[in-house]
Amino acid sequence: MTENCLFCGIVAGTIPSQRVAENERAIAFMDINPATRGHLLVIPREHSMDLREAAPEDLIAATLLAQSLVGRVIDRLDADGANLLSCIGADAWQSVFHTHLHVIPRYKDDPLQLPWHPTPGDFDAIAATATELR
Amino acid sequence: MTENCLFCGIVAGTIPSQRVAENERAIAFMDINPATRGHLLVIPREHSMDLREAAPEDLIAATLLAQSLVGRVIDRLDADGANLLSCIGADAWQSVFHTHLHVIPRYKDDPLQLPWHPTPGDFDAIAATATELR
Ligand SMILES: [Zn+2]
Ligand SMILES: [Zn+2]
Ligand SMILES: [Zn+2]
Ligand SMILES: [Zn+2]
Repeated sequence: MTENCLFCGIVAGTIPSQRVAENERAIAFMDINPATRGHLLVIPREHSMDLREAAPEDLIAATLLAQSLVGRVIDRLDADGANLLSCIGADAWQSVFHTHLHVIPRYKDDPLQLPWHPTPGDFDAIAATATELR
Repeated sequence: MTENCLFCGIVAGTIPSQRVAENERAIAFMDINPATRGHLLVIPREHSMDLREAAPEDLIAATLLAQSLVGRVIDRLDADGANLLSCIGADAWQSVFHTHLHVIPRYKDDPLQLPWHPTPGDFDAIAATATELR
Protein backbone atom coordinates (compact mmCIF):
# COMPACT_ATOMS: atom_id res chain seq x y z
CA MET A 1 0.00 0.00 0.00
CA THR A 2 1.23 3.43 -0.93
CA GLU A 3 0.19 6.35 1.21
CA ASN A 4 -1.99 9.00 -0.33
CA CYS A 5 -3.00 6.68 -3.16
CA LEU A 6 -6.77 6.81 -3.58
CA PHE A 7 -6.99 3.31 -5.05
CA CYS A 8 -4.75 1.76 -2.38
CA GLY A 9 -7.24 3.27 0.09
CA ILE A 10 -10.08 1.57 -1.79
CA VAL A 11 -8.24 -1.76 -1.71
CA ALA A 12 -7.65 -1.36 2.03
CA GLY A 13 -11.25 -0.29 2.62
CA THR A 14 -10.27 3.00 4.28
CA ILE A 15 -11.85 4.81 1.34
CA PRO A 16 -15.39 3.69 0.48
CA SER A 17 -16.25 2.17 -2.90
CA GLN A 18 -18.96 0.07 -4.44
CA ARG A 19 -17.14 -3.17 -5.06
CA VAL A 20 -18.64 -5.45 -7.68
CA ALA A 21 -16.21 -8.33 -8.12
CA GLU A 22 -12.77 -9.45 -7.08
CA ASN A 23 -10.20 -12.17 -7.38
CA GLU A 24 -7.05 -12.92 -5.45
CA ARG A 25 -4.98 -10.13 -7.00
CA ALA A 26 -7.53 -7.61 -8.35
CA ILE A 27 -10.78 -5.85 -7.46
CA ALA A 28 -13.49 -4.12 -9.51
CA PHE A 29 -15.65 -1.24 -8.32
CA MET A 30 -17.92 1.43 -9.75
CA ASP A 31 -16.38 4.56 -11.22
CA ILE A 32 -18.05 7.45 -9.37
CA ASN A 33 -17.64 9.62 -12.48
CA PRO A 34 -19.23 7.24 -14.96
CA ALA A 35 -18.76 7.88 -18.66
CA THR A 36 -21.76 5.57 -19.27
CA ARG A 37 -24.08 3.54 -17.05
CA GLY A 38 -22.13 0.73 -15.41
CA HIS A 39 -18.64 2.18 -15.84
CA LEU A 40 -16.24 0.06 -13.76
CA LEU A 41 -12.63 0.26 -12.71
CA VAL A 42 -10.52 -2.85 -12.32
CA ILE A 43 -7.31 -2.54 -10.33
CA PRO A 44 -4.60 -4.83 -9.00
CA ARG A 45 -4.57 -4.89 -5.20
CA GLU A 46 -0.84 -4.27 -5.33
CA HIS A 47 0.22 -0.70 -6.05
CA SER A 48 1.97 0.17 -9.29
CA MET A 49 1.85 3.52 -11.00
CA ASP A 50 0.62 2.39 -14.35
CA LEU A 51 0.17 -0.68 -16.53
CA ARG A 52 3.79 -0.57 -17.61
CA GLU A 53 4.94 -1.10 -14.04
CA ALA A 54 2.39 -3.69 -12.99
CA ALA A 55 3.75 -7.16 -12.23
CA PRO A 56 2.64 -9.65 -14.91
CA GLU A 57 0.55 -11.66 -12.44
CA ASP A 58 -1.27 -8.51 -11.32
CA LEU A 59 -1.93 -7.39 -14.88
CA ILE A 60 -3.16 -10.87 -15.78
CA ALA A 61 -5.52 -10.96 -12.80
CA ALA A 62 -6.92 -7.51 -13.60
CA THR A 63 -7.33 -8.35 -17.28
CA LEU A 64 -9.18 -11.61 -16.62
CA LEU A 65 -11.45 -9.87 -14.13
CA ALA A 66 -12.12 -7.13 -16.69
CA GLN A 67 -12.88 -9.76 -19.33
CA SER A 68 -15.51 -11.36 -17.14
CA LEU A 69 -17.02 -7.96 -16.37
CA VAL A 70 -17.29 -7.10 -20.06
CA GLY A 71 -19.53 -10.15 -20.39
CA ARG A 72 -21.44 -9.17 -17.30
CA VAL A 73 -22.25 -5.59 -18.32
CA ILE A 74 -23.50 -6.86 -21.67
CA ASP A 75 -25.62 -9.57 -20.06
CA ARG A 76 -26.92 -7.74 -17.00
CA LEU A 77 -27.15 -4.13 -18.14
CA ASP A 78 -28.22 -4.93 -21.66
CA ALA A 79 -25.22 -3.04 -22.99
CA ASP A 80 -24.51 -3.40 -26.69
CA GLY A 81 -20.76 -3.61 -26.26
CA ALA A 82 -17.96 -2.28 -24.12
CA ASN A 83 -14.57 -0.65 -24.20
CA LEU A 84 -11.57 -1.68 -22.20
CA LEU A 85 -9.25 1.28 -21.72
CA SER A 86 -6.08 1.92 -19.82
CA CYS A 87 -4.31 5.25 -19.67
CA ILE A 88 -0.56 5.27 -19.14
CA GLY A 89 0.69 8.73 -18.19
CA ALA A 90 -0.93 12.12 -17.69
CA ASP A 91 -0.55 12.87 -21.40
CA ALA A 92 -2.71 9.81 -22.05
CA TRP A 93 -5.51 11.01 -19.72
CA GLN A 94 -4.33 9.11 -16.62
CA SER A 95 -5.46 10.91 -13.48
CA VAL A 96 -5.06 8.33 -10.70
CA PHE A 97 -1.59 6.85 -10.61
CA HIS A 98 -2.46 3.32 -9.56
CA THR A 99 -2.75 0.89 -12.48
CA HIS A 100 -6.34 0.54 -13.59
CA LEU A 101 -8.46 -0.73 -16.45
CA HIS A 102 -11.68 1.03 -17.34
CA VAL A 103 -14.57 -1.21 -18.39
CA ILE A 104 -17.00 1.14 -20.12
CA PRO A 105 -20.34 -0.37 -21.17
CA ARG A 106 -21.52 0.90 -24.53
CA TYR A 107 -25.07 1.45 -25.71
CA LYS A 108 -26.24 1.81 -29.28
CA ASP A 109 -25.89 5.44 -30.33
CA ASP A 110 -24.50 6.54 -26.97
CA PRO A 111 -22.58 9.80 -27.33
CA LEU A 112 -19.32 8.61 -25.75
CA GLN A 113 -16.22 10.43 -26.84
CA LEU A 114 -12.82 10.20 -25.24
CA PRO A 115 -11.48 12.02 -23.37
CA TRP A 116 -14.70 12.32 -21.43
CA HIS A 117 -15.10 15.06 -18.89
CA PRO A 118 -15.46 13.28 -15.56
CA THR A 119 -18.50 14.50 -13.68
CA PRO A 120 -19.93 12.81 -10.60
CA GLY A 121 -22.78 10.42 -11.29
CA ASP A 122 -25.88 10.08 -9.12
CA PHE A 123 -24.90 8.05 -6.05
CA ASP A 124 -28.14 6.07 -5.80
CA ALA A 125 -28.21 5.26 -9.50
CA ILE A 126 -24.63 3.99 -9.31
CA ALA A 127 -25.46 1.92 -6.23
CA ALA A 128 -28.44 0.37 -8.02
CA THR A 129 -26.28 -0.50 -11.00
CA ALA A 130 -23.66 -2.03 -8.71
CA THR A 131 -26.36 -4.30 -7.32
CA GLU A 132 -27.28 -5.42 -10.82
CA LEU A 133 -23.65 -6.26 -11.48
CA ARG A 134 -22.90 -8.21 -8.30
CA MET B 1 -8.04 -19.56 -38.97
CA THR B 2 -11.36 -18.13 -40.04
CA GLU B 3 -11.90 -17.41 -43.70
CA ASN B 4 -12.41 -13.82 -44.72
CA CYS B 5 -10.94 -12.55 -41.46
CA LEU B 6 -8.40 -9.83 -42.21
CA PHE B 7 -6.42 -10.46 -39.05
CA CYS B 8 -6.36 -14.24 -39.52
CA GLY B 9 -4.85 -13.44 -42.93
CA ILE B 10 -2.22 -11.30 -41.24
CA VAL B 11 -1.40 -14.10 -38.79
CA ALA B 12 -1.10 -16.56 -41.68
CA GLY B 13 0.98 -14.12 -43.73
CA THR B 14 -1.39 -14.20 -46.71
CA ILE B 15 -2.16 -10.54 -46.01
CA PRO B 16 0.90 -8.29 -45.62
CA SER B 17 1.60 -6.42 -42.40
CA GLN B 18 4.49 -4.76 -40.67
CA ARG B 19 5.06 -7.08 -37.76
CA VAL B 20 6.93 -5.61 -34.81
CA ALA B 21 6.88 -8.27 -32.09
CA GLU B 22 5.35 -11.61 -31.28
CA ASN B 23 5.16 -14.37 -28.75
CA GLU B 24 3.84 -17.89 -28.89
CA ARG B 25 0.17 -16.94 -28.90
CA ALA B 26 0.07 -13.31 -30.09
CA ILE B 27 1.53 -10.93 -32.67
CA ALA B 28 1.87 -7.14 -32.90
CA PHE B 29 1.90 -5.13 -36.10
CA MET B 30 1.49 -1.55 -37.27
CA ASP B 31 -2.01 -0.14 -37.64
CA ILE B 32 -2.14 1.18 -41.21
CA ASN B 33 -4.64 3.83 -40.11
CA PRO B 34 -2.62 5.22 -37.22
CA ALA B 35 -4.33 7.48 -34.71
CA THR B 36 -0.86 8.64 -33.65
CA ARG B 37 2.70 7.82 -34.68
CA GLY B 38 3.51 4.23 -33.71
CA HIS B 39 -0.07 2.97 -33.31
CA LEU B 40 0.09 -0.82 -32.95
CA LEU B 41 -2.39 -3.66 -32.94
CA VAL B 42 -1.84 -6.72 -30.78
CA ILE B 43 -3.84 -9.82 -31.62
CA PRO B 44 -4.00 -13.45 -30.51
CA ARG B 45 -3.01 -15.81 -33.32
CA GLU B 46 -6.13 -17.80 -32.63
CA HIS B 47 -9.35 -16.36 -33.97
CA SER B 48 -12.02 -15.06 -31.62
CA MET B 49 -14.54 -12.37 -32.41
CA ASP B 50 -13.79 -10.07 -29.53
CA LEU B 51 -12.10 -9.93 -26.15
CA ARG B 52 -15.08 -11.52 -24.46
CA GLU B 53 -14.63 -14.68 -26.50
CA ALA B 54 -10.85 -14.92 -26.37
CA ALA B 55 -9.43 -17.88 -24.48
CA PRO B 56 -7.74 -16.74 -21.26
CA GLU B 57 -4.30 -17.88 -22.42
CA ASP B 58 -4.69 -15.91 -25.65
CA LEU B 59 -5.86 -12.78 -23.85
CA ILE B 60 -2.99 -13.11 -21.39
CA ALA B 61 -0.43 -13.46 -24.19
CA ALA B 62 -1.83 -10.45 -26.05
CA THR B 63 -1.95 -8.34 -22.88
CA LEU B 64 1.63 -9.13 -21.87
CA LEU B 65 2.83 -8.37 -25.40
CA ALA B 66 0.89 -5.09 -25.32
CA GLN B 67 2.41 -4.25 -21.95
CA SER B 68 5.92 -4.68 -23.31
CA LEU B 69 5.07 -2.55 -26.34
CA VAL B 70 3.75 0.27 -24.17
CA GLY B 71 7.21 0.44 -22.66
CA ARG B 72 8.79 0.24 -26.08
CA VAL B 73 6.84 3.09 -27.69
CA ILE B 74 7.68 5.32 -24.74
CA ASP B 75 11.37 4.41 -24.86
CA ARG B 76 11.95 4.22 -28.59
CA LEU B 77 9.53 6.78 -30.02
CA ASP B 78 9.89 9.21 -27.15
CA ALA B 79 6.16 9.02 -26.53
CA ASP B 80 4.91 10.65 -23.34
CA GLY B 81 2.42 7.91 -22.57
CA ALA B 82 0.10 5.45 -24.24
CA ASN B 83 -3.42 4.13 -24.27
CA LEU B 84 -4.42 0.52 -24.36
CA LEU B 85 -7.85 0.16 -25.92
CA SER B 86 -10.06 -2.71 -26.90
CA CYS B 87 -13.43 -2.35 -28.57
CA ILE B 88 -16.02 -5.05 -27.99
CA GLY B 89 -18.88 -4.79 -30.47
CA ALA B 90 -19.73 -2.44 -33.35
CA ASP B 91 -21.45 -0.06 -30.92
CA ALA B 92 -18.12 0.24 -29.14
CA TRP B 93 -16.24 1.17 -32.34
CA GLN B 94 -15.06 -2.35 -33.20
CA SER B 95 -14.57 -2.70 -36.95
CA VAL B 96 -12.48 -5.87 -37.36
CA PHE B 97 -14.05 -8.82 -35.61
CA HIS B 98 -10.90 -10.58 -34.48
CA THR B 99 -9.91 -9.78 -30.89
CA HIS B 100 -7.36 -6.98 -30.80
CA LEU B 101 -5.77 -4.50 -28.43
CA HIS B 102 -4.78 -1.08 -29.68
CA VAL B 103 -1.54 0.33 -28.30
CA ILE B 104 -1.72 4.04 -29.05
CA PRO B 105 1.38 6.09 -28.23
CA ARG B 106 0.56 9.49 -26.80
CA TYR B 107 2.49 12.70 -27.19
CA LYS B 108 2.20 15.79 -25.03
CA ASP B 109 -0.64 17.94 -26.36
CA ASP B 110 -1.50 15.54 -29.18
CA PRO B 111 -5.04 16.10 -30.39
CA LEU B 112 -6.26 12.50 -29.99
CA GLN B 113 -9.96 12.06 -29.48
CA LEU B 114 -11.85 8.79 -29.65
CA PRO B 115 -13.47 7.67 -31.81
CA TRP B 116 -10.82 8.70 -34.29
CA HIS B 117 -11.60 8.71 -37.97
CA PRO B 118 -9.33 6.08 -39.47
CA THR B 119 -7.41 7.43 -42.41
CA PRO B 120 -4.51 5.66 -44.06
CA GLY B 121 -1.09 6.76 -42.85
CA ASP B 122 1.94 7.24 -45.07
CA PHE B 123 3.33 3.80 -45.88
CA ASP B 124 7.01 4.76 -45.72
CA ALA B 125 6.60 6.65 -42.47
CA ILE B 126 4.85 3.67 -40.89
CA ALA B 127 7.57 1.33 -42.16
CA ALA B 128 10.25 3.57 -40.68
CA THR B 129 8.45 3.61 -37.33
CA ALA B 130 8.11 -0.18 -37.43
CA THR B 131 11.89 -0.40 -37.82
CA GLU B 132 12.36 1.78 -34.74
CA LEU B 133 10.07 -0.52 -32.78
CA ARG B 134 11.59 -3.85 -33.76
ZN1 LIG C 1 -2.10 2.58 -5.11
ZN1 LIG D 1 -8.50 6.37 -15.36
ZN1 LIG E 1 -9.52 -13.90 -37.28
ZN1 LIG F 1 -9.97 -1.79 -33.60
